[in-house]
Amino acid sequence: MKGELVIAGLGPGPESWVTPAARAAVEAAEMILGYTPYVNRIAARPGQVIEASDNREELARAKRALAFAAEGKRVAVVSGGDPGVFAMAAAVFEAIEESPALSEGVDIRVEPGVTAMLAAAARIGAPLGHDFCAISLSDNLKPWATIEKRLRLAGQADFVIALYNPASKARPQQIKQAFEILSGVLPPEAVVVFARAVGRSDEEIDVTTLARAADMPCDMRTLVIVGSRATRQVKSADGRAWVYTPRSERS
Amino acid sequence: MKGELVIAGLGPGPESWVTPAARAAVEAAEMILGYTPYVNRIAARPGQVIEASDNREELARAKRALAFAAEGKRVAVVSGGDPGVFAMAAAVFEAIEESPALSEGVDIRVEPGVTAMLAAAARIGAPLGHDFCAISLSDNLKPWATIEKRLRLAGQADFVIALYNPASKARPQQIKQAFEILSGVLPPEAVVVFARAVGRSDEEIDVTTLARAADMPCDMRTLVIVGSRATRQVKSADGRAWVYTPRSERS
Repeated sequence: MKGELVIAGLGPGPESWVTPAARAAVEAAEMILGYTPYVNRIAARPGQVIEASDNREELARAKRALAFAAEGKRVAVVSGGDPGVFAMAAAVFEAIEESPALSEGVDIRVEPGVTAMLAAAARIGAPLGHDFCAISLSDNLKPWATIEKRLRLAGQADFVIALYNPASKARPQQIKQAFEILSGVLPPEAVVVFARAVGRSDEEIDVTTLARAADMPCDMRTLVIVGSRATRQVKSADGRAWVYTPRSERS
Repeated sequence: MKGELVIAGLGPGPESWVTPAARAAVEAAEMILGYTPYVNRIAARPGQVIEASDNREELARAKRALAFAAEGKRVAVVSGGDPGVFAMAAAVFEAIEESPALSEGVDIRVEPGVTAMLAAAARIGAPLGHDFCAISLSDNLKPWATIEKRLRLAGQADFVIALYNPASKARPQQIKQAFEILSGVLPPEAVVVFARAVGRSDEEIDVTTLARAADMPCDMRTLVIVGSRATRQVKSADGRAWVYTPRSERS
């Protein structure tokens, strides 16, 4: 019997942001593997096995999921947000590249989801309304020099910049270094959005400027958006402050 | 009575990629406005008014939607994909910036969706697994010189590059120019993905190299992903070819 491996994105948090396709994949699975906080969002049905693991174990999790699927099981690997953005889909293909035989007899499918930057942007307006980039600030998987170079070029290109994994307990300082680098290429009044726990009960969204950004609290559950030169604040008639980037650039 | 304006993303096509929140917003609306192909995806219920308009009329549509909401109506403006990515959310905030009074008495909400690049990436593997950027190739709203500069810097930064609006009947040549610019900074063997009509019955995904990319057909319904130096092809045991970008960069 042919096994199945679906790598599904559960979106940033609430049920109402999980696509029906991702929901169906999770419901159909006999085994569900993922990082603990993501699998904890799933209510298991009788007969389902849920296996939680740590967030540094992506490759091992991918191999284990492939092994179960190769036995003929229906397996889902879940990511928060979108599985293709700094998440499990790449880990599964890394495992397959390392050893193609792992995927013997396995149907593979990736189910997209709402990634954190889209949800964060929606909450505060439309900061990603013009050209933008997404950079993971974690140097666990790449040299810090690469991150520095990308930040500088992204600032020169005047992209809106979404920063994933901006800080963790082990890396509290890198987001401050990132703001320092960006200060060399962007004006001090550039708009910066801190979106924490988007879609959760403890959601908190703060807006500040690049000059003041280093003083803001920032952790693993925060998504940071640094505006381009065109990104601006606007108030609706009810006094609510929004952030958006116009679609057009005046030449 | 207070009106409501929800700017909702319907995802790239199929019902199964529409979030429950976006679905609920559309169902609750008395009036739904949008670009014709997007509103045509909605099955109206009795009492709903659906108003289709052309794709160069975003600002006028935003103002009209605000005006209906200001009268106390529940209004939804729909975008394909995510409303915050080269879509209607920015147009609504542009309208409000131009004239804040338009939003008098209107509750505004943005409902995120699965944007085209995430769905295209999911279909072919995980090309967006590492740092990436999104650039709209349309020069209707910005000078071509800006696009050229961003392409060059994105190539230098070694971002994976998602190209939205790569071509239209009026702009068949710009995608070829874009490939030429990228050829100056990326190797000829860089992987290029053409994802056409993702999630639709006529979906077609082709993979080629930067050297051959200019020969590929490309239209308004195509999303192009140009890989970074790290993006690669891998085959699963069933012979299916995937494209992915590893999470880690070897220093």
